[in-house]
Amino acid sequence: MDNIRIIEIKESVFADNDREANRVRSELKEDRTFLLNLMSSPGSGKTTTLCRTLERMKDEMRIGVMEADIDSDVDAHTIAETGVRTIQLHTGGMCHLDAGMTEQGLKELGTDDLDLAILENVGNLVCPAEFDTGAAKNVMILSVPEGHDKPLKYPLIFTVCDALIINKIDVLPYFDFDMDKVVEYAHMRNPNLAIFPISAKTGEGVDAWCDWLRSQVIEWNG
Amino acid sequence: MDNIRIIEIKESVFADNDREANRVRSELKEDRTFLLNLMSSPGSGKTTTLCRTLERMKDEMRIGVMEADIDSDVDAHTIAETGVRTIQLHTGGMCHLDAGMTEQGLKELGTDDLDLAILENVGNLVCPAEFDTGAAKNVMILSVPEGHDKPLKYPLIFTVCDALIINKIDVLPYFDFDMDKVVEYAHMRNPNLAIFPISAKTGEGVDAWCDWLRSQVIEWNG
Repeated sequence: MDNIRIIEIKESVFADNDREANRVRSELKEDRTFLLNLMSSPGSGKTTTLCRTLERMKDEMRIGVMEADIDSDVDAHTIAETGVRTIQLHTGGMCHLDAGMTEQGLKELGTDDLDLAILENVGNLVCPAEFDTGAAKNVMILSVPEGHDKPLKYPLIFTVCDALIINKIDVLPYFDFDMDKVVEYAHMRNPNLAIFPISAKTGEGVDAWCDWLRSQVIEWNG
Repeated sequence: MDNIRIIEIKESVFADNDREANRVRSELKEDRTFLLNLMSSPGSGKTTTLCRTLERMKDEMRIGVMEADIDSDVDAHTIAETGVRTIQLHTGGMCHLDAGMTEQGLKELGTDDLDLAILENVGNLVCPAEFDTGAAKNVMILSVPEGHDKPLKYPLIFTVCDALIINKIDVLPYFDFDMDKVVEYAHMRNPNLAIFPISAKTGEGVDAWCDWLRSQVIEWNG
């Protein structure tokens, strides 16, 4: 069994999260590390999508992963099997990570030798959207079984994200999910949102998503 | 188009939510109104499950529904089509309802003539579990596509709930979902949890869930 390091992160003491987030972002920019903040509901397939992404990109850049969870370390073990450096962050019940909590994780992960650090945020469409983590880019996953009406009900997360992955397209035939509508609703919230329909299970569409992520990392790291 | 009343609920001023929740619960008990707090992730099928439940129970008891959402009123319109009295609560970005917020909703709904009031909480597995709303019983929905590992990752909500509905069993063939494991994990969190596998889409299992709910309401209202 791999030995996953578990970090119990503490609630931040900073009053001004936006300022802390900008500081974290500047330091990462200077160090040429791209931080990706990956958000979604529970069960949308963050971990599987991450595994498919790591398989495709781990040999071309140096990547580290922070798995944030309220409890358990099942996802960190799954990610570690890809051979990528992984730590588990326990939030102690907290429903999101802010910039201070993310920075604790980054210090434990060690970013000096990383081109790309990925934060898998707590599964929640509401609270994580309210807290800037200091990430270069925010990405969310919405899965087909969750329904195409989610941009209407959870507006903020669609607004703050740079890309939307629509996962589990392999089960489209079994759900009343309207792809045109979800694209329309998501672009109402954020006209610049890049949208990638994928199946993390079959691999369909994953290359297009990885192409986008790769170009973002290269642009950031200069 | 039905005319749904939309209530903008305000953040509570009460420091001690548990005390407020117990007060709300006592008053409802005295008035013979059973309050059900229904929680789940976004997209697990709360609204569809509620529609199937209302169809079966609305002619045998007096029911009212409060639809809580951050934004939008799409669900309230769907529920109102069943003919049951429905109001929409807007949380103004808040990720959960506490007892004070629930009480604002109950006053707007009017509970004097109700046997059963149902609160469809904000779609979120984390925060709603932390706040007692004053409900007689808490119920959560987990849907098959979300995966059987959720009791490991979101322990609190499984602990505070009295019943777990496992929805979307019609798509079991298309997902790696282990029913025995989810029951085992859920009972690790809460040995007394009543579990109902259902398909709100096909109607399978819905009668057993309604039998449980009916018996709870009858016991509470005495």
